[in-house]
Order: sequence, then C-alpha cells, then structure tokens
Amino acid sequence: MAKVLCVLYDDPVDGYPPAYARDEIPRIERYYDGQTTPTPERIDFTPGELLGSVSGELGLRSFLEQRGHTLVVTSDKDGANSVFERELPDAEVVISQPFWPAYLTAERIAKAPELRLALTAGIGSDHVDLQAAMEHGLTVAEVTYCNSISVAEHVVMMILALVRNYLPSHQWVLDGGWNIADCASRSYDVEGMQVGTVAAGRIGSAVLRRLKPFEVGLHYTDRHRLPAAVERDLGVTFHETPESLVEVCDVVTINAPLHPETEHMFDERLIGMMKWGAYLVNTARGKICDRDAVARACESGRLAGYAGDVWFPQPAPKDHPWRSMPHHGMTPHTSGTSLSAQARYAAGVREILECWFDQRPIREEYLIVDGGKLAGAGAHSYSPGDATGGSEEAARFAAG
Amino acid sequence: MAKVLCVLYDDPVDGYPPAYARDEIPRIERYYDGQTTPTPERIDFTPGELLGSVSGELGLRSFLEQRGHTLVVTSDKDGANSVFERELPDAEVVISQPFWPAYLTAERIAKAPELRLALTAGIGSDHVDLQAAMEHGLTVAEVTYCNSISVAEHVVMMILALVRNYLPSHQWVLDGGWNIADCASRSYDVEGMQVGTVAAGRIGSAVLRRLKPFEVGLHYTDRHRLPAAVERDLGVTFHETPESLVEVCDVVTINAPLHPETEHMFDERLIGMMKWGAYLVNTARGKICDRDAVARACESGRLAGYAGDVWFPQPAPKDHPWRSMPHHGMTPHTSGTSLSAQARYAAGVREILECWFDQRPIREEYLIVDGGKLAGAGAHSYSPGDATGGSEEAARFAAG
Repeated sequence: MAKVLCVLYDDPVDGYPPAYARDEIPRIERYYDGQTTPTPERIDFTPGELLGSVSGELGLRSFLEQRGHTLVVTSDKDGANSVFERELPDAEVVISQPFWPAYLTAERIAKAPELRLALTAGIGSDHVDLQAAMEHGLTVAEVTYCNSISVAEHVVMMILALVRNYLPSHQWVLDGGWNIADCASRSYDVEGMQVGTVAAGRIGSAVLRRLKPFEVGLHYTDRHRLPAAVERDLGVTFHETPESLVEVCDVVTINAPLHPETEHMFDERLIGMMKWGAYLVNTARGKICDRDAVARACESGRLAGYAGDVWFPQPAPKDHPWRSMPHHGMTPHTSGTSLSAQARYAAGVREILECWFDQRPIREEYLIVDGGKLAGAGAHSYSPGDATGGSEEAARFAAG
Repeated sequence: MAKVLCVLYDDPVDGYPPAYARDEIPRIERYYDGQTTPTPERIDFTPGELLGSVSGELGLRSFLEQRGHTLVVTSDKDGANSVFERELPDAEVVISQPFWPAYLTAERIAKAPELRLALTAGIGSDHVDLQAAMEHGLTVAEVTYCNSISVAEHVVMMILALVRNYLPSHQWVLDGGWNIADCASRSYDVEGMQVGTVAAGRIGSAVLRRLKPFEVGLHYTDRHRLPAAVERDLGVTFHETPESLVEVCDVVTINAPLHPETEHMFDERLIGMMKWGAYLVNTARGKICDRDAVARACESGRLAGYAGDVWFPQPAPKDHPWRSMPHHGMTPHTSGTSLSAQARYAAGVREILECWFDQRPIREEYLIVDGGKLAGAGAHSYSPGDATGGSEEAARFAAG
C-alpha cells in the first residue's frame, strides 16, 4: 500500500468551502486538438468546488483510503522542518501544484528512496529536477492541457488590461474620482499592434487564435515550427529567434516551459532590444525573466507594463519588486487554478492515479519522464538539465 | 464667423502633456466594414497625444482661428452658472464628449438661438434631446465607428476580468499576500460559457467576433437581425427578446444606444430573469441599467459581477453605489477615449467641421439629425424622444 504525499495551497482565509459565485461550470469534453479531457473511472467531487487547497484534497481521500493507501495533505513545503520534507522519505507518490510548488530538488529526491511518481496537478514540471528524476528512475507526469485555456484567457485579459490601462482606471473609481485624462493618458487600443508569443505550444497557439480577430499583427518564435497551414490560417509570422521577435512587437507574451535554455531568457539584453514602451506578459514561469531587469525596465519606461502570474520563488516574498514596480498587472499564480481548471486537473490526477495503482499505462501525453527516461511530451517541451536552482530561496523565505 | 463651444474633460492631475508610455500609435485606415477612418484635409496634432482634455482642444484651435472662428473650450458644463451655459447663447457649434457630456436639454437648446450643429467627439448623442434638436432644425452628428473597437476591446477585457476574478487577485499582490485559494474561489474560465449581447451593431458585432475563438456559446438580440451569413459565420443564436437572451446566458454585455426604449431596460425584473451568478457588462450607457437594481443584485449574488464604464450622471458622484458595491470592475467613462480613439475622433471632428464651414455634405454615416430631420444613422439607432431626463442631477452634483 502506498503513501501519497500531496502538497496543496492554503485554504481561503474566509474558510472552506467558500460561498461559490456560481452553481456549476460548463462541461468540456474535448480540447481544441481533439484530446479528451480527463477520463477517470469516477470522481468524488462536484466540478466547480475548490479542490486545490488543503481541505479540498483534490477530491482524492475516499478513493485512496478505500484502496488502502495513505493520503497526507499539507501546505507546509519549504525548509528542512517542513511537513513535506518530514513526510517525503517513505512517500511513493508526490503530488504538487505549480501555484504552490514543492521543489523536488536532487537533494530531496536522494532522501526519498520510495519515491516512484512525481505528479503535477496542473502543467509544468520545472519544480522537479528532471535530471535527478531520470537518474533515480522516477516517473514524472502532468495533466497536459488541463489548464492551458485558462492560462491563455489570462494572457489575453492581461494584454488588454495593460494596454488599456485598466487597473489604474479602476482605482480612480474606488478613490471617488472621475479623472478621465489621467486614465486615458496611458490607455491605448490593442488593434493594429504587433503581438508576439515566445513559444506556440498549446497555450501560445490558443493565445494566437484568441487574438486573431483583434486585428493585430501576430508573431511567434518556437523551436518547433507550426505547420504551414496553421501559420497561414492564423496569419502569424515566424521568427527564428526571440531577438527578431521582440524587435518588432508592441506586446510580447511568454508561453514557454522553464528549462535551462529559457531560464533568464528575458534579461537586460533581450529586454533592451524590445520596442520602447512595449508590454510584456509572462504567465509561463517567473525565472524565464530576470527579476531585476524587469523591474528596472518598468521604472525606466522601456516596458510600458508587465503582467503575469508567475514568480520565483513561490510564494513570492512580501518585498518582491514585482509587487511594487510601476505599471504592473500581476496576480499570484492563479491563472491555471480557476475553479474550471481545478475540476479538470483533479480529474486528471485521479485518472493518473487509477492507472498507476491498476498498473495500466498512463496517457502518453501526460508523461514527462517515464520510469527514468525522458518521454515524448517531456522531450517536446524540456531540455535535459535542471531549473530548480535557487529554490532554497523559498526555504529562506519560509524560515524568515 | 462662428463661435465653436467645446466641452472637454479636465486635464490630468499630473499636468499636460503627460509623459506618454509610447512613441506612436498604429495607423488604421479602414474599419471592419470597409468604412474609412476620418479623412480631414489635414490635422494639427500628432496621433497618440492627449487631445480629449481641455488643453488638448481636440487639436482644433489653429484650424478654427486661421479661418476667423472663435473657439471656447471648457470643462465647466453643469449648472446655470457654468461656463457652458454662459457661452451657449451665441454658439453656432457645440462639441461634447460622452465621457464628459454637456447635456443639451430642451431648455438649453431653447436658450441657444444661434445653435446649428451639435457634434459628439465620439459616439452616442443621447446627451442631446433629439426631439428638441429636430424641432429647432439642428444638425446632430457623431464620429461613427471612431471608438467602436476601443469599446469592444474594453468589453472583452471586462468579461475576462470579472469571470477570472482579476481585480481582487491583483489586490492580493499589492497587499503582500499569496492567497491563491481566496483568488481562485471566485475565478472561472470563460470557455464553454454562454455569452450574449444586447444589440449587435458595430460594437456588439465586434465583441462577438472577438469572443468566437474563446469557444463560448454566442447569443444576441437586436431590433435589426444580422444577415444569415453573418449569423452562421459567428455561430451566434438570435433571440427575439432580451428576456429570452438573459435566461440562457452566463455573461451579458449591453451594446445598445440609449433611447426611450432602452432606458432602464435592465431593471429589477429583467435582472431577476438572469441566471444565478451571471455577469453583466455595460459599456453602452449607464441609464440602460437601473442603478439600484444592479447594486442589489451584486449584493445578493444574483450577479456574480458587474463591470462597465458608463454611469449616470457623469461625472458619477462620489457616493454612487457602483463605486462600492461588491464584485464590480468599473472604470470611469474611458473605454472610448484611449489615445488611439482620441486620434480618430479628433480627426473626425476636424473632418466634420471642414465640411460644415466649407458647406460640403457631412458623411451620411455621421449624421443622426440632419437639419432637423432624423437621418439614416439616427433612424437606425435611435427612437424618437428624449433620454436626457434627470440630467439636472448632474447640475446638483456640480453645485454640491
């Protein structure tokens, strides 16, 4: 019988369950490319409930306990005295979410001899040292596509909000003012702008499709070129390099996974090549951007605005400069954990665990590392190596 | 030689001109339907500048003064002692903006014997008593299409922001928190929802086109049905009545002009027919919604959120309930006055004035009332009658 160690974010401060705004969520059976949404044998939760926080337990407890397994759920993930680190040595399965990542560094993997499966309830396995995972024969899986559309919607929302100057304009309402000129003097239309995505995978392509009717110029760069028919259909221009893309774009959105090649890609140099007054939206991973270079560019005006929902480390410290730099539209890491997304990733985790314990194959599209070998999905998105470096900062934050 | 009386909003508190975020705005030559953007003989401003506030003067001063006309610009528009009311009696042309409307009531029109042309620098002539304008033989014109896309972008932005719970999530960042569960427990994806527009004119259709790739169900109601090919292309369902539309929609957006038939359309009764936890976005005119019914529905949870940028009266008093009701995403009336929109409506005003003073015909699509008769564009959008009632509230606010 296995021990499943599940690291989830804290419950809402207003208690659990919350007073939901809506009675139900739309039923979605297939993604854009035809892939089906998760197909577990059954679920023990109601879609639309808060499942991603500790009391929600991803709806897994009765399923696991009926089969004789042990479920440990905690939000305490950073530092040597954390529940996560104490419970890790005899865990067979670790489940974590990108929004509240339990960093599985090489050191931690070395201390977990029973560990076989590292599961992301969401998308993105950069909190796992994939090199170490391969060396230890682990399987690393994520719920591919489960929240790609959630993130794509967040990207479009943030582009519109930055360009149109939404957040400061809303603040004038709260402050009792009617200062239209103050709102308008940083407000533009998106129409006619050049918008580019760094990577055009599931999220990047979904962003491009959603932006097409906005009558903008579309651009992308990626290590995998889109089929010519898709390029034509979207009217999107391919760029061999991020440099070529950023030089012509008014808005840049980052939709690449974090791996050693993308880590700190948007540094002083690349940001310095962007158009004056460009907008940058990063819902991919915080470490793809250089923290201080972004803050300086917002101060100088090189960037007219920066938005996104990914930080490093996570949770972001109270004094993280992206909380206070000018013209930002940040959220905590929430784009992929809407209640709609939670229903899908909880069902996907259930599907993967059903397969795991029944010794049926896990869907290929979910596999990043399969029994120690980089799997198809992993090879498409990741480069060998490790991008967890610096996650000890999180531990310092937890301790401090 | 004519006197042109131009009512514009106040300059930014940070002074004029502002430090612009960007060097330029995209050049747009035609709208979606093929209509050309404004074609004045020349302009005396740089597109992208702040033109809509008093110092900006819509870029008109040198043009008018070189021709020997007088230009009076003021933001002081409400009450009997306002500059507007004092300057009105010998004005031939009045220019006003919807964002800062100079209400041309029947009483004011009666006191302006020289008045011939009431021009909206933007779209929407509901601040003019059209009945009185017709009786006095006035011409009423607006810069049709100039900011329709600006507003459509605002609508999509606000739908995404309400459904995804953007504003409260951003506030957690500013407050130093990482309360993901608090952000997520009111956050949904738009995907799969049913979204309906009340009216599918230039703005409503542009909203539908932009929402189509979000994979939502689209709905509309309008007194003019769209061509069957357009309905098919958008995959949009027609509803004979607003009642039929709101009963099935998760999100409703209002894109109708204000006239006696639409005034207070969204009252207690119609809002009560909406789905529990629906979202309502109104960037059309404040008076299309019953102020207190909206606030009560946000309090009760009938509406999961309300957003928009139109109020009544304008400026909205500091104690207007839409500033403080729960789950709102309001802005001051800014959607149609982005710097991009300003460049177009300033050019459109210039085009109309060039025609007026050169006695050339004004473009048909700009004319609401033409020398006292309801013109083509006016007949399409407006019903005879008056929707300026209650604008004396604005005067009380100005006095108070």
